[in-house]
Amino acid sequence: MTFASTWADLAPVGRAPDGGYRRFAWTSEDHVLREWFAGEASARGLDLTTDRAGNQWAWWGDPDVTPGVVTGSHLDSVPGGGAFDGPLGVVSGFAALDALRAKGVAPRRPLGIAHFVDEEGARFGVACAGSRLITGALDADRARGLRDADGVTMGEALQRAGRDPHALGRDDETLRRVASFVELHVEQGRGLVHTGDAVGVGRMIWPHGRWRVELRGEANHAGTTPLADRRDPMLDLAAFIAHVRRAADDAGALATVGKLHVDPNGVNAIPSQVTAWLDVRAEDESAVRAVLAALRDYAPAEESWTPVTLLDSDLADVVAGALTDPPRLGTGAGHDAGILAAAGVPTAMLFVRNPSGISHAPGEDADEADCLAGIDALATVLERLLT
Amino acid sequence: MTFASTWADLAPVGRAPDGGYRRFAWTSEDHVLREWFAGEASARGLDLTTDRAGNQWAWWGDPDVTPGVVTGSHLDSVPGGGAFDGPLGVVSGFAALDALRAKGVAPRRPLGIAHFVDEEGARFGVACAGSRLITGALDADRARGLRDADGVTMGEALQRAGRDPHALGRDDETLRRVASFVELHVEQGRGLVHTGDAVGVGRMIWPHGRWRVELRGEANHAGTTPLADRRDPMLDLAAFIAHVRRAADDAGALATVGKLHVDPNGVNAIPSQVTAWLDVRAEDESAVRAVLAALRDYAPAEESWTPVTLLDSDLADVVAGALTDPPRLGTGAGHDAGILAAAGVPTAMLFVRNPSGISHAPGEDADEADCLAGIDALATVLERLLT
Repeated sequence: MTFASTWADLAPVGRAPDGGYRRFAWTSEDHVLREWFAGEASARGLDLTTDRAGNQWAWWGDPDVTPGVVTGSHLDSVPGGGAFDGPLGVVSGFAALDALRAKGVAPRRPLGIAHFVDEEGARFGVACAGSRLITGALDADRARGLRDADGVTMGEALQRAGRDPHALGRDDETLRRVASFVELHVEQGRGLVHTGDAVGVGRMIWPHGRWRVELRGEANHAGTTPLADRRDPMLDLAAFIAHVRRAADDAGALATVGKLHVDPNGVNAIPSQVTAWLDVRAEDESAVRAVLAALRDYAPAEESWTPVTLLDSDLADVVAGALTDPPRLGTGAGHDAGILAAAGVPTAMLFVRNPSGISHAPGEDADEADCLAGIDALATVLERLLT
Repeated sequence: MTFASTWADLAPVGRAPDGGYRRFAWTSEDHVLREWFAGEASARGLDLTTDRAGNQWAWWGDPDVTPGVVTGSHLDSVPGGGAFDGPLGVVSGFAALDALRAKGVAPRRPLGIAHFVDEEGARFGVACAGSRLITGALDADRARGLRDADGVTMGEALQRAGRDPHALGRDDETLRRVASFVELHVEQGRGLVHTGDAVGVGRMIWPHGRWRVELRGEANHAGTTPLADRRDPMLDLAAFIAHVRRAADDAGALATVGKLHVDPNGVNAIPSQVTAWLDVRAEDESAVRAVLAALRDYAPAEESWTPVTLLDSDLADVVAGALTDPPRLGTGAGHDAGILAAAGVPTAMLFVRNPSGISHAPGEDADEADCLAGIDALATVLERLLT
């Protein structure tokens, strides 16, 4: 099994003709990805376990005897997403394990490869749902009640996928098995392009969150309602979008309106309501709060919030020491690594260079040579942590 | 069969819990409505025919011997629409026929009741598709290729509904049977509230059209792409919506952005593209053209266009003469009556008072007394035209 052949196996799952991926949690695509993960584990003789949230763990060695070192990432995508965000970390985990075995490394601790479910939150609106559930950062009742665009709850989706929605909840048994976590991820920016390195080490994850804004109007006929009599929420949307960008500029933050829902969304109907989702991130929480303060008239309702995550500096030193003076990067993107770090698991991240910096879109890319350098780096780090 | 009981039979079809209707062309709801129409025709011993576009015609008398007087309307709805827009005209047609028979009227011409399909164009984007197809105003090839939000073409939808998509086309045999057409419709404004009348007569239908605007950007990650590096089409959308309202205000026209499609529509993804639909209407075509000229930088692509329709003044005089000095109304809403009038069929319209003026929304309403007055007026007009 080579990196290229494993990558090729995964490539067609959930890919649209335009190259964009749609791999949403607990869909048929997700099922194929779970079967793929189980198959990779089985082909290597690893022990497959599934935790209360449905995250999959493939273990080399028994983590109930000694807690293990874990690597891995997620396999789901945003709508129209790229191939690398998530899967690169899982595939690299299996490849690094193969490299350690080929080298004859005898680990003194177990090695685990994790597949976290629903990292993007594309279906139910809460990012990192799998890792948040097992660490207790996402309440099981709230999770079960989250709805997708078709009104299906996460509870119903789990049931349809053959899982027990009542199993959701903090999973201490699973967390006890994790001595440390190293997530490899494609970079979602051009930091490594600027430094000229194939691989970098994570320093921190920016504080970030999601909010929902409801703009209410009055539905009416587009052909018969005088302009003066309208309560058209599209006009409020226009003002809101412009306001968001101004507030982000003023605060030195990133703020994005990426998702809308228009009701009823008919060409000849003045909408009754427009719902807009807001994503805000910044290196400092104060900048995020400044954006929200500027938008307070719109009463943004928080859907998720993740404070700044400083990755474990001792572990980062071990990781950096195993490599040759790698650059250290902060990132505005959230990761399961950040959720585990916030729950007290010593956590590190490795980033692989992305030539365009594009992410969450079909243009997301990494050269094969850089992917192989990432696997080498991950194997070196894991060997250092395991022996 | 009373008006109230017939109305109650129809009421549940495609109604959401909030009272809004979703009755899209060639869906299962549409199938139920077609079966209902066939049942009403059969219960009255009328001859049911279906034309090349799938419009249904229930005939009392043989229109191949003498062309007949036709009344009727449509049964489909916009998303989240009201109960009256369309169905009131069809139900009133059957009720007026019952009234004529109860009175022992012996028609010298056939009377037809028409059910036009896909008047709102809510599914495939072209309003009055059924009447446009049989009059040749909508090309059959273009119609077959129109796609709904799920990418299903009208051709495929027809096939799934058990119809032959190759039957679509101008239908002279059907048009030859129609000597004149009288459409009764709920008013979509408060003209009759202001005059204090239950029923009014149509004078003209404003020129109106639909355009599509594509706002292109570059998809990227909301958490990692600096504001300065973004090509975010949401900002263009905000400017467009504001521009549309300003242009409509300046021109004295109605212009509406009621429908959006965001791609990929993810909370943490800068969109690659936003599509906005534009509806523009005015009493004068020059005002519509002024709005479009103001928006030319957005390159609006025409999806449909209907010039001003002056309803037949002789027929309107007959209609008005049959009633007691009814007010004459223009309307910004398009109707199948306008399509038939443009094709040379002498056409009239009756409007029934709408207390709130709300239309295309659950608040659309008419008092039962006014509906009965509408049926009376329609029966009187039909009797005058038939004898």
